[in-house]
Amino acid sequence: MCGTGGAEVTAACRSNYNVVREKGITVQSGKLGYHPNWHPTRVVKSADEVDVAFDYLAPASEIVRPYLESHVQRSSGKLPLVVMIQNGVDIEEEMYRTLVATDKPLACGIASGLTWVGTTLLDNGTRIEHGNFERFEVGFYPLPRFVKPDAEAERLLDEFIEIITCGGSTVVKSDDIEALRWSKILWNTSWGGVCLLSRQPVAEILRPEVMPYTCGVARSLMCEVMAVARANGIDESRLPMSRVDDVYNMTQSQSTALFVNPADPSCASRVPTTLLPDDFKPSILVDLERGRPTELEPIFCNIAARARRTGVPTPHLDTIIAAVKPYQAKLIASLGHKATNEYHVNPRANAVGGAPVI
Amino acid sequence: MCGTGGAEVTAACRSNYNVVREKGITVQSGKLGYHPNWHPTRVVKSADEVDVAFDYLAPASEIVRPYLESHVQRSSGKLPLVVMIQNGVDIEEEMYRTLVATDKPLACGIASGLTWVGTTLLDNGTRIEHGNFERFEVGFYPLPRFVKPDAEAERLLDEFIEIITCGGSTVVKSDDIEALRWSKILWNTSWGGVCLLSRQPVAEILRPEVMPYTCGVARSLMCEVMAVARANGIDESRLPMSRVDDVYNMTQSQSTALFVNPADPSCASRVPTTLLPDDFKPSILVDLERGRPTELEPIFCNIAARARRTGVPTPHLDTIIAAVKPYQAKLIASLGHKATNEYHVNPRANAVGGAPVI
Repeated sequence: MCGTGGAEVTAACRSNYNVVREKGITVQSGKLGYHPNWHPTRVVKSADEVDVAFDYLAPASEIVRPYLESHVQRSSGKLPLVVMIQNGVDIEEEMYRTLVATDKPLACGIASGLTWVGTTLLDNGTRIEHGNFERFEVGFYPLPRFVKPDAEAERLLDEFIEIITCGGSTVVKSDDIEALRWSKILWNTSWGGVCLLSRQPVAEILRPEVMPYTCGVARSLMCEVMAVARANGIDESRLPMSRVDDVYNMTQSQSTALFVNPADPSCASRVPTTLLPDDFKPSILVDLERGRPTELEPIFCNIAARARRTGVPTPHLDTIIAAVKPYQAKLIASLGHKATNEYHVNPRANAVGGAPVI
Repeated sequence: MCGTGGAEVTAACRSNYNVVREKGITVQSGKLGYHPNWHPTRVVKSADEVDVAFDYLAPASEIVRPYLESHVQRSSGKLPLVVMIQNGVDIEEEMYRTLVATDKPLACGIASGLTWVGTTLLDNGTRIEHGNFERFEVGFYPLPRFVKPDAEAERLLDEFIEIITCGGSTVVKSDDIEALRWSKILWNTSWGGVCLLSRQPVAEILRPEVMPYTCGVARSLMCEVMAVARANGIDESRLPMSRVDDVYNMTQSQSTALFVNPADPSCASRVPTTLLPDDFKPSILVDLERGRPTELEPIFCNIAARARRTGVPTPHLDTIIAAVKPYQAKLIASLGHKATNEYHVNPRANAVGGAPVI
């Protein structure tokens, strides 16, 4: 069965491989509608535990290499486009260097993508709950002004965009995906960071009585990330400072707190904007709660690494890293791998059919 | 049965009331020895859930008031000494004002105490595991140089010190317990704070591969607390800056990391100092994991409140508060109480027989 955009979809599943093959996935989306038992065209398996460790420790290119090699064989040498859909910064370089800018290329380009979507995977991975908000941002790595994209890569990306637009997605094609990555990471590190720290869904950190403690920290995290961005050449023309307010308000507007006037409770009739499901948790927290490696490195550590190189202090960010590193190290050790002290780049890149993450 | 110091001990128990009455408590201590099935002289009950909420929401004086009233009745008006054994700062004022410096006093004084002891309560509250390290610090509130203690209070405190010294405790009587509170909170906020954030025992945050992420944050937390202390009149003569290194090294020395020389692993023969059991977790983390209200307010929020009043930035501390406040608020709400935005003072004071906490 095809997706609503007309594409054949191959899903690489881990723990939900069997149920997805049998029953498909039920999509309940405010924006995209209700799709009971939707079946991908193909479901392929990736061995669970091994892959988890692999994701974390191996370069991302190693994960997609076998898929690309078999594709190139089937298509008699025609190179595909790799679309990375993942949070974080500094995630594409290794992929580009080893798969595109090499003597034996396996892809004609790297499209770097971000999805803004609050989804929750339920019922053993067979049901997706989604609200009304969704946006897909994508552009080439390296930025087109530095390296002109290959013509075939341009064609493939436009085709990909057309398919998912037909499927109902709102797509923004950008010449500066790097700036958009920093823009999105503003959410992941701040509201996402406080959810991660407190192990709570967004709704809980927006309770009126905890907002004096959570909201200031969320905003401080955004300011730290902006300072690192500026020190690394992402200037006002690429990422305006007003994004801090945008990202802040986007989530804070979902609290009931602002709308209740204690002096006159009858004024409390305005309802908050509801973009996310009530129990929505950022993917990094879901990973942590399920005992999987998290996207700590691309989201938090890569920014901290840039901060150290450019002398920007990031105390709030550092505290989040201190909060999650021991978990991550313990987990990797339990998987039988020797952990290192290095900042990992790109531990969980999702290429050719990666799961949407927020 | 008396304690080894010769005192009659009344234990107020919650969830472990029945088992402690029946089987007593088994103490396994490196410092204090093995005491199988030790029975307190009396075990009194305090209703579980109610008390938990009460502790958190009510002034501490309300918790001890009934005990004190019945004591005063029995002893024909002779006033007892209240010994508070609890972490944190700014915890005594309410107790002193309502029980001592009042028209109808119920106590002749407030002794403010701190215990440095890494204990773990196991087997449904019937077994205490303890290492080699223990120290009890105590002094009068207000400080004697501000208010001369009552003669009877002096006598009672000396008697109390004699009893627990006979029992094997190492006691330090101090004229400046306030400075010692700040000194101890250096540990609670820093190493304790990182354990709390990461939900890990001390040993896990000292793994060599995570130390680059945890130790800097621990030290930064100490520096923030010192800055708040200085801004609040705790000067070098009362709390030397070298305490930061002392508190830092006390725990960091328990890591194996320092003793392994990668260039020559044969040098790795030195063993780290072992003061705490391997799986030791700070009490605030144990409370959190067991779904009980935590000492967030006396340990963290009271410092943050002082920091705000004196204009000292505390980003690491604020991040910890953001991490735990949502849990605390959710819990209080689930107990059917209306939470407030105020900084609580003294939420879990342990008076007349409180549990040792680190």
